[in-house]
Amino acid sequence: MSRYFDALDPAELARNYPVTESVGTLRALSRAKLRALQEARFLRIVDRGWEIPFYRRRWTEAGLSPGDIRGLDDLARLPTYDKSDIMASVEANPPFGDFHGREPGQPMILQTTSGTTGRPQPLLWGPKSREVQNMLLARLYSMQGMGPDDIVHSVYGFGMVNGGHYIREAVHHWVGATLLSAGTGAETRSVQQVHLMRDFGATVLVGFGDYIRRLADVAREAGLEPGRDIPVRMISGHFGSDNRDMISEAWGGAQVYDWYGVGDTGAISAEGPDRSGMHIFEDAHLIEVLEPETQRPVEDGAPGEIVCTCLYKDDIFPIIRFVTHDMTQIVPGSNPLGLPFRRMQGMLGRSDNMIKLRGINVYPHGIGALLTGAFAEASGEYICRLGRQGDDMTLSVSVEVAQPSVALGEAMEALLRERLGVRIGVETVVTGSTAALTQIEARQKPIRLIDETD
Amino acid sequence: MSRYFDALDPAELARNYPVTESVGTLRALSRAKLRALQEARFLRIVDRGWEIPFYRRRWTEAGLSPGDIRGLDDLARLPTYDKSDIMASVEANPPFGDFHGREPGQPMILQTTSGTTGRPQPLLWGPKSREVQNMLLARLYSMQGMGPDDIVHSVYGFGMVNGGHYIREAVHHWVGATLLSAGTGAETRSVQQVHLMRDFGATVLVGFGDYIRRLADVAREAGLEPGRDIPVRMISGHFGSDNRDMISEAWGGAQVYDWYGVGDTGAISAEGPDRSGMHIFEDAHLIEVLEPETQRPVEDGAPGEIVCTCLYKDDIFPIIRFVTHDMTQIVPGSNPLGLPFRRMQGMLGRSDNMIKLRGINVYPHGIGALLTGAFAEASGEYICRLGRQGDDMTLSVSVEVAQPSVALGEAMEALLRERLGVRIGVETVVTGSTAALTQIEARQKPIRLIDETD
Repeated sequence: MSRYFDALDPAELARNYPVTESVGTLRALSRAKLRALQEARFLRIVDRGWEIPFYRRRWTEAGLSPGDIRGLDDLARLPTYDKSDIMASVEANPPFGDFHGREPGQPMILQTTSGTTGRPQPLLWGPKSREVQNMLLARLYSMQGMGPDDIVHSVYGFGMVNGGHYIREAVHHWVGATLLSAGTGAETRSVQQVHLMRDFGATVLVGFGDYIRRLADVAREAGLEPGRDIPVRMISGHFGSDNRDMISEAWGGAQVYDWYGVGDTGAISAEGPDRSGMHIFEDAHLIEVLEPETQRPVEDGAPGEIVCTCLYKDDIFPIIRFVTHDMTQIVPGSNPLGLPFRRMQGMLGRSDNMIKLRGINVYPHGIGALLTGAFAEASGEYICRLGRQGDDMTLSVSVEVAQPSVALGEAMEALLRERLGVRIGVETVVTGSTAALTQIEARQKPIRLIDETD
Repeated sequence: MSRYFDALDPAELARNYPVTESVGTLRALSRAKLRALQEARFLRIVDRGWEIPFYRRRWTEAGLSPGDIRGLDDLARLPTYDKSDIMASVEANPPFGDFHGREPGQPMILQTTSGTTGRPQPLLWGPKSREVQNMLLARLYSMQGMGPDDIVHSVYGFGMVNGGHYIREAVHHWVGATLLSAGTGAETRSVQQVHLMRDFGATVLVGFGDYIRRLADVAREAGLEPGRDIPVRMISGHFGSDNRDMISEAWGGAQVYDWYGVGDTGAISAEGPDRSGMHIFEDAHLIEVLEPETQRPVEDGAPGEIVCTCLYKDDIFPIIRFVTHDMTQIVPGSNPLGLPFRRMQGMLGRSDNMIKLRGINVYPHGIGALLTGAFAEASGEYICRLGRQGDDMTLSVSVEVAQPSVALGEAMEALLRERLGVRIGVETVVTGSTAALTQIEARQKPIRLIDETD
């Protein structure tokens, strides 16, 4: 027998977490009914938390006992945690930590983070929570227009990281589209990727913005015109403050949609055809937006850190008040699609990636978007260097353009000073010359900042 | 709803194609009952074939009409096909050819071959045939001793090729073990792989022989002793005529098991604990062993080409008399596990990779195994070069050893001449020096032959 399929009832899951028909079904949900659903799911998750050493320890240390948390109004009494707490749990109880609650022999899916910032973190699921994550991704893809007749080209990487596997399962199991599981440029060479898209007639492209933009250049270099030779009409991925008009234009006018999630939580929110912000899937996730230092909720429209509780993850590795360190803000006003969900903005940066330059907060990962928005010459490829001059931190950036010039660099420098209120040195460099540093061919998320202060 | 799960009844599939309890359940099957099962499944497959343009065309050209094939005794009346026929079908009806029978909107899994020898071939499944392939792989893994408590490290690659995805689905869905989906050295660097195996306590290692051997070296270079620091006790993969004692020894005495299958067919046969050849899963596959030129069945014990009909693949891309060009021979005698199945030997080579040197058949991919079997100095890494001298073809091989010497090369040359009956030049080279040519870090199947005759 199959331990995986035995742990699943796909029809029941689909009733509880609507997928393809989501907009219609979910519209029927009033804000009050949604709240009642959240209450019920939240209490089940809290019960599960008490069974797991990691949460029991932290909650007990915070002075809580089982039964103290009676509903959503008590949410803020539960302590938050972040990745460093998970890594400490792994350190103390290798290799899986004590945060998962897996029984011996219980089927478990294991992937890891990429380990960019140290030892990779284990990401864990049971069959049920795995498939609900897949369903939520399928829900947002459907909402953005993907359907069974699409040919979907995915550039999310495989190996130990979750990305590629997650997309593959969601598209196969819950969208029913045909998938080209190309992966990164290290898994399928970029020039092979564009020929694959041409040969199989890719209609949808999914992945991270940087590599998606790069593939358009590779296509043109190979003599293939996006939109004409490659019929991509929809692009879905992670664009944050990237210049999406530029990506759309590079791909022959394709519709570009953003969505947000992290490895632990899966898809949390996504843009729909209204493009008025990302709809938060609040039937599956409780989302708080908190001021990073005080952990108090911010007003709608003010920036704060996303803190996530997964309402569906009650088998392995429950996620209860997880601080993502990603910054966003709630979009005020009523939902234009008639969904019972709040909306959030695209990523504003990470609270732990922020640099303070002479008292001013700068997000190096946002610099590319600022420049491509103002200068047609900027390709979007760049690398920042953090340095030190006496007691001061300094930031400089090398920006790829077709024809480098000192005047262009000075104009960019003036723009950054105007927008950010602080001096950032700009040097224009020839197309392709930052690739070795950013590792854009091999990495999901290219390196954009080199710290030279040590 | 899920188009994938709606097309499946996992419990029914498990009754029809036993998985974990396979040896017990399948033992109850007499040879006569097996034949009756094959007859019924074969007739369904033939009916499906008539619905598909590729088969209808070829069968009609062979003078057949629907109803002519009444059972297994008529098998040989159906024309065979090979990969070149599939590629011609793709050429004429891009991008998917006319061999699949997919209805519009029907869920379909697409992967491709690696395209080592030209344009990649599409490999296609419906949800049912995909899961039965996964079950057959889980069956053989279980037969070899893998269970839900294992930590399985897989070095099969991802991207468009099927290998890594196939293993991942089989282990997750039907074995219930925990998987480390590391992939090739290009997906997870080799030194990271051995640390991953140590950190998570890998007990099983699966993949192709060449890279598995290489990983043992990488572990030792990283100061990790296989068997002590990495508790691998079972290795399952594709070893053909490789020296398995050497692989077992490199991995601290782990049990090494072979299995056979190609991308189109999935797992066909596998060794069990008896190690008396590979048990052919004849409830799922009809296997013929034919003389390559005449296509007549060879006697048991004589070498021939494997021709496969998949008895379970009745949704998308039925496989009916597919010539694999892989050479094997049937092992005569009764089945020592009491299974109703015939057994076959490990791969002897490929009928289309054979080289004729002065009238003698040589399989370059078997040379490494010959040398490691006779010389402790040979690491198993090597590259062959095919050249020309006047009208004659010549073969020479560079063999990696710790300390190259002319005398050692001459001794190897003498061995090859004695075993193969033809002169093959041998040069010993320092460890690591063939890696750039074989591409062992990045490829599932390293390059072993360079053709310099052009």
